[in-house]
Amino acid sequence: MKEYTKSKLNRVKRGANRAVYDQEEINKIIDAGFLGYVSYTYDGVPISIPMAYGRIGNKIYLHGSNGNRMLKSLLSLETVSITITHLDALVLARSGFHHSVNYRSATIFGAPKKIEDDEQKEVALKCVLDYMIPNRWDSLREMSQKELDQTLVIEISIDTASAKIRNVGAIDEPEDEVLPIWAGIVPIVQKVEKPVSDEKLNADVEIPPHVIEYYENHK
Amino acid sequence: MKEYTKSKLNRVKRGANRAVYDQEEINKIIDAGFLGYVSYTYDGVPISIPMAYGRIGNKIYLHGSNGNRMLKSLLSLETVSITITHLDALVLARSGFHHSVNYRSATIFGAPKKIEDDEQKEVALKCVLDYMIPNRWDSLREMSQKELDQTLVIEISIDTASAKIRNVGAIDEPEDEVLPIWAGIVPIVQKVEKPVSDEKLNADVEIPPHVIEYYENHK
Repeated sequence: MKEYTKSKLNRVKRGANRAVYDQEEINKIIDAGFLGYVSYTYDGVPISIPMAYGRIGNKIYLHGSNGNRMLKSLLSLETVSITITHLDALVLARSGFHHSVNYRSATIFGAPKKIEDDEQKEVALKCVLDYMIPNRWDSLREMSQKELDQTLVIEISIDTASAKIRNVGAIDEPEDEVLPIWAGIVPIVQKVEKPVSDEKLNADVEIPPHVIEYYENHK
Repeated sequence: MKEYTKSKLNRVKRGANRAVYDQEEINKIIDAGFLGYVSYTYDGVPISIPMAYGRIGNKIYLHGSNGNRMLKSLLSLETVSITITHLDALVLARSGFHHSVNYRSATIFGAPKKIEDDEQKEVALKCVLDYMIPNRWDSLREMSQKELDQTLVIEISIDTASAKIRNVGAIDEPEDEVLPIWAGIVPIVQKVEKPVSDEKLNADVEIPPHVIEYYENHK
């Protein structure tokens, strides 16, 4: 079990009993999604924006337009953070104070780097796209040089990270447990509905196996 | 239709055709969720953390433990930002370049203020809890003074905001439309599963109407 070293930056202070530093556990949280909240500062105001990502080993990839102000500003930071959260349940306690949610949330920290090499860019873009929906990239037409040139790809080497996982029921004050108030959890899941084909699609193009599989796994 | 004034801070640069400044539209995005990403800076690193919120008029409420480092640091900011995003679909195009997602995302900006008055604190905490699940607060035991004292409540007056909404299908290069590659959208929805009663619940406490209604509306 490899753990991220605890430092001022990644140490979980509130609810430290739910803290996770194990790299494999954190990778599981990263791999369970494809949208993360990337933070930057504009005019002294910290702002976060949801962005698609992909992971290869300890590198996270982001991409966007070459003109993207936020991506450019990320490159000026020594350390970038990305937060990825999956909401699993509402936790309804007998008191307002003990209400909570079950979740898996990871924040990773790392140094950003612009990828210049076209081949490396393509590898990163394939990774990001296949995180959204597995095996998509290989079904598409090739990227043009113009498209590659218009795309800014950023690699973030994970220097450190931490996660918090809550996956238990309501924890009430012992004296509240006898109250005639309902407590429990309401599980929350992200699901997928039937794929809708593009109107302009040629009539003979069927929904491909990788899309059907994605639907079957998430419906 | 009341719109937020466009400024350097909230003006949408990328995909300006999808920009929304209308206050009612932005409130709809806020009201469709209860978890937002609040950004702060620690040791020069911008970080965002998911937090429960509630809205009353143009005020957003956050809460947490009195010892919460992040909430305390929010209070030192002149302007706080919160980003709320709902993912509605994967948008699968014929080229990697034109892949996208459908979403509703709002970022609000405003000045933070600590609420000191106990009555105002309770109003805010009721608001946050009822954003998570409507009508919950009134079914609970009253908050104790000790709990109130342990809770830090922050009010953020929305000074400005902007949103982006994408809700259309794949937009491919015209010359790609004839390719034998499947394109379309895969709708994504957040759903709720059957409430699970707490193990320690008295046998005669039934799942209350507000929980059943929430389940029925989101299952």
